Amino acid sequence: MSEGILFVLSAPSGAGKTTLSNLVMDHFQALTPSISYTTRKARPGECNGVEYRFIDHAEFERMVNAGEFAEHADVHGNRYGTSKADLDALLTSGKDVLMDIDVQGAAQIRSSRKGGIYIFIVPPSMEVCEERLRARGAEDEESIQRRLEGARNEIKEAESYDYIIINDKLELAAETLRSVIVAEHAGGERVFNKVEEIFQLN
Amino acid sequence: MSEGILFVLSAPSGAGKTTLSNLVMDHFQALTPSISYTTRKARPGECNGVEYRFIDHAEFERMVNAGEFAEHADVHGNRYGTSKADLDALLTSGKDVLMDIDVQGAAQIRSSRKGGIYIFIVPPSMEVCEERLRARGAEDEESIQRRLEGARNEIKEAESYDYIIINDKLELAAETLRSVIVAEHAGGERVFNKVEEIFQLN
Repeated sequence: MSEGILFVLSAPSGAGKTTLSNLVMDHFQALTPSISYTTRKARPGECNGVEYRFIDHAEFERMVNAGEFAEHADVHGNRYGTSKADLDALLTSGKDVLMDIDVQGAAQIRSSRKGGIYIFIVPPSMEVCEERLRARGAEDEESIQRRLEGARNEIKEAESYDYIIINDKLELAAETLRSVIVAEHAGGERVFNKVEEIFQLN
Repeated sequence: MSEGILFVLSAPSGAGKTTLSNLVMDHFQALTPSISYTTRKARPGECNGVEYRFIDHAEFERMVNAGEFAEHADVHGNRYGTSKADLDALLTSGKDVLMDIDVQGAAQIRSSRKGGIYIFIVPPSMEVCEERLRARGAEDEESIQRRLEGARNEIKEAESYDYIIINDKLELAAETLRSVIVAEHAGGERVFNKVEEIFQLN
């Protein structure tokens, strides 16, 4: 059984990342999301170990100090983190992991481990990004403007990603994301080990 | 219009490369084969500029000396070569080029230009490779053994390729090759230029 591949997916708000990753997740049985630890309280209907692993602040702090997180962040006073051991267990079992994370988190992952594939989703234009944010209807003008400004800054970080997918037509973008996953499994370094075995090249 | 991508495809005999590249060529309108120059005589039905560009030995030699070939080789006294100018013209016009070439030719291409994507096709086992060679029915035992020995040596060169596709099930291998082509168009370096334009990041 060969090891799975870690796919790290980042995008600014309004790029359509969540819809896209759900579409692709439905397509690959072996593709699994990573589950974060968080200190925030479970909402009604959320189960421990499904959406998140719910822990208290003391335990979170212990894990931070023990270096158990591949990345962690503080969002409005709640803490979120991805356990290195969880990632390793999934990948070793042969599963691909799709990690949905912002650019800061992705940078932490990149510096904490080798071999992940980094994919950035961008909206086709700032106008579409704005439309998508407004379509959600839940935010006031000020927070939309703040998100747009944030989006533009995040998009600059796309430069350090292995792949950039411009999400213009959803089905086309999903096809590209699926292709990246299939293609990476044919990565030369990865497959050559198998080839050496098959043809006893050593 | 962004530039096309050069895909260089190598495989030992019996790997199923020709069937595979035909399947994939049918799928992508923008994917075009490169056309070689050769000194061999045109066979009945072959048209100059379709299968090959037919030239004489003197003209071939002139092109070699002028450095006009991205790669060239001598096969049983006939010479074959791919013109740098032809490749550049196709790629600049936005077409992807699929070059079907042996490991020696691929090595010449690699040292003569940047940016190509190198894909190696291997048979799923030495046994299948042998079956496929025998199924052609046209060769004697000695030449089959020589091809098998050659195949094993060529497979060692797979290590230097960007992608390796194990051609076990044809449809699956074709899907992988198609995915590589789609994924490479989402290559970060390639797309970031477009992103910089769209979002005026400069």
